[in-house]
Amino acid sequence: MREWEHYLLANRERHLTELCDFLRIPSVSAQPSHRREVDRAAHWVAHRLLRAGIENAGVRGPVVYGDWLHAPGRPTVLIYGHFDVEPPGDPERWTHPPFQPHLTSDRIYARGASDDKGNMQIPILVAEAMLRTAGRLPVNIRCLFEGQEEVGSPDLPAFVASNRHLLACDLVVSADGGQWAEDQPALTLGCRGLAAFNLRVRGPRSDLHSGVYGGTVQNPVHALVRLLDSMRGPDGTVAVDGFYDGVEEPPPWQRAAIANLPHCDNTYRTELGVDQLVGEKGYATLERSWLRPTLEVNGIWGGSETAVVPAEARAAVTCRLVPGQEPGRILGRIEAHVHTHVPPGVQVEIERLPGTADPYRMPADHPANRAAAEALREAYGRVPLEVAMGASLPVCALFREQLGAETLLFGFGLDDENIHGPNEFFRLRSWERGQLAWGRLLEELEDFHV
Amino acid sequence: MREWEHYLLANRERHLTELCDFLRIPSVSAQPSHRREVDRAAHWVAHRLLRAGIENAGVRGPVVYGDWLHAPGRPTVLIYGHFDVEPPGDPERWTHPPFQPHLTSDRIYARGASDDKGNMQIPILVAEAMLRTAGRLPVNIRCLFEGQEEVGSPDLPAFVASNRHLLACDLVVSADGGQWAEDQPALTLGCRGLAAFNLRVRGPRSDLHSGVYGGTVQNPVHALVRLLDSMRGPDGTVAVDGFYDGVEEPPPWQRAAIANLPHCDNTYRTELGVDQLVGEKGYATLERSWLRPTLEVNGIWGGSETAVVPAEARAAVTCRLVPGQEPGRILGRIEAHVHTHVPPGVQVEIERLPGTADPYRMPADHPANRAAAEALREAYGRVPLEVAMGASLPVCALFREQLGAETLLFGFGLDDENIHGPNEFFRLRSWERGQLAWGRLLEELEDFHV
Repeated sequence: MREWEHYLLANRERHLTELCDFLRIPSVSAQPSHRREVDRAAHWVAHRLLRAGIENAGVRGPVVYGDWLHAPGRPTVLIYGHFDVEPPGDPERWTHPPFQPHLTSDRIYARGASDDKGNMQIPILVAEAMLRTAGRLPVNIRCLFEGQEEVGSPDLPAFVASNRHLLACDLVVSADGGQWAEDQPALTLGCRGLAAFNLRVRGPRSDLHSGVYGGTVQNPVHALVRLLDSMRGPDGTVAVDGFYDGVEEPPPWQRAAIANLPHCDNTYRTELGVDQLVGEKGYATLERSWLRPTLEVNGIWGGSETAVVPAEARAAVTCRLVPGQEPGRILGRIEAHVHTHVPPGVQVEIERLPGTADPYRMPADHPANRAAAEALREAYGRVPLEVAMGASLPVCALFREQLGAETLLFGFGLDDENIHGPNEFFRLRSWERGQLAWGRLLEELEDFHV
Repeated sequence: MREWEHYLLANRERHLTELCDFLRIPSVSAQPSHRREVDRAAHWVAHRLLRAGIENAGVRGPVVYGDWLHAPGRPTVLIYGHFDVEPPGDPERWTHPPFQPHLTSDRIYARGASDDKGNMQIPILVAEAMLRTAGRLPVNIRCLFEGQEEVGSPDLPAFVASNRHLLACDLVVSADGGQWAEDQPALTLGCRGLAAFNLRVRGPRSDLHSGVYGGTVQNPVHALVRLLDSMRGPDGTVAVDGFYDGVEEPPPWQRAAIANLPHCDNTYRTELGVDQLVGEKGYATLERSWLRPTLEVNGIWGGSETAVVPAEARAAVTCRLVPGQEPGRILGRIEAHVHTHVPPGVQVEIERLPGTADPYRMPADHPANRAAAEALREAYGRVPLEVAMGASLPVCALFREQLGAETLLFGFGLDDENIHGPNEFFRLRSWERGQLAWGRLLEELEDFHV
């Protein structure tokens, strides 16, 4: 066992107590009333970096930055994570209060435990362990932790663009990401992009009595329903002209690799509580989740419980995108579709939402993949699977574009940890394995060259 | 001028003060918290009937009943109205508080001013005027005022069915109804029926992250959208198999009569604030409103503003029905349609709502029409138009079925009086003309025989 491992084991209780302190800060970025709590979390992180031996640590605009750059000739790794959390939602649905961490023998429950406070704490602990024991790190590191991830990182692109020198690196390693299963690691080699829009359909000046006026004017809900239905086929295939332009069919080797993953449709279906899975014909479930683009209505609203022809109706829609698609172009295609499909008698507004994300693929032959695979193999005792993810991590494309560096996803969350729902938790086993894996990763990256 | 007219003129201020007292009672039947206020309004009405000289007046179950039966050999008229009101909605949208009546030179503003307190007060005032001046009425009357009209009169059918002897009459005259325009009376010879249902579509156990799961399961909003869209054609024609069974085309004379009404599509369109009218091809606007059945989504809900595949979505839908259609049969047809159109991967529940109404047509040659026409002609100085209404009055079919009597609609509201919206008002001119017309109607009915 290496010295830094001993240090981490010896300080396990203190580190867990610190995580609880971190989780007690309700740093909900989506709620303006919690702005001070997000700031408090930022200062907590900056202070923690300093105590770990990271230098130049402090709050800078929307992020906390810190670095340790005393490994000349060695690569520089930018460590990314976020200290803001999703709103907890209805507190009644939590078994324990969301900001009062609850420890069991193998889990820690709290909002942010898995996404992403528990995960982003890990590289800080590992850096401290190495600096306290060896006095040095195998690589140079820069830390970039943000407090706006859950609201689409509105200020991050400008910050990164204007701080390219400060953030210069050979590789980004993100502490936001996940593994396959409790005992099965995975290398996540890509994620889908994101484009979101709202549709608003306006009809009569005010809600009308549906008896007096029904049958004489367009009903905005029916107009919206027709418009949304026109955008997809029965299996979810997107029917917007040009939507699939540039999307390539997955190559046979990739389909074969996915077919070999230990995935069971029946288990997946049962866990979600549906009687059958539904999606584009000709693609396996994981292919649809990772490699195929989508258009999904997230919410729809209009009218009332009383007998009215509503004055308006609206829907919130997101598309997940894959390589070959670009959010702006896709939104343009959708706007064109809407304009040619507006039912008569209503006005339709389409509003592009901020927070788009380009799809991302890590080059399959990138040397960081090998380093990560070796680190995960040591931590789990198993060779990692090669997977992708259906969700979006906008920072990957941002870092590639602004810093010229690829992003290795190196988080330890699992899909069942309720990261945006009630009773979010993080497995302590993942937290421990994550520490071992991060330490080994930094060692493996010592001789890394792109 | 007749003596009862003098009495009404001489007591105008007192009667208006009484109407304000009546309007101050927030008798909102849809809000259980207002139950005592509905009771208070019932007792107010019973007391007012007694003071008018109506006998046996009191609260009986869901209604207030009273009678005056001292005109042997003369017909018996059942006077219907309601003393409950719609919820006022957002008080911010009212210029004056909804339950603090506000008088201008020609209007009275308050929730219930037009629907229906201002209208149902009229026959009470007229009966009092005749009893105080002549000591008698031209006909026997029974009063039946209810406090559940705005919630679909759940207890009225059973009450009427078990009190047929108490309510026995030759004709019903409803104080709930309207006229064509401020200076143009109308005989309303029919109304559409009503059948309402809720649709609930359930998919996954809980809201799912639309990145992780989008493309692999049915989205309940998309399923609902598809189902709703399958129920109507682009112009609103209902696409449910069997929906139009039994519906007859309007005869040429009726279409000609409607075409001759002083209706202007452009004015109608402008008042509603839409850029074009939309509805079944081949039918004029008023034909669509009065003579054609509809299926309208009144409300739709599902999902959230965040990127989820929602666990469920739901919609509230009402159909307006015309002669030849029966609510139960129509709901059966819709259930059959839903069951054959359920998209895969979701469960759909259809819930029939109570408060259905049969469509109603007053026989065109009914002698009460002539009496009403004469009364309206005297009050307005113009011959009434013959019209129908698109909204539903379930009591008409109920009284026909249980009492064997037709219902003459004899109210004085106008479409622009915001009866279910903020700033409801009643025209004082209509209130005055209503008193004259009711008095003349009772006189005309003295020699009425079915």
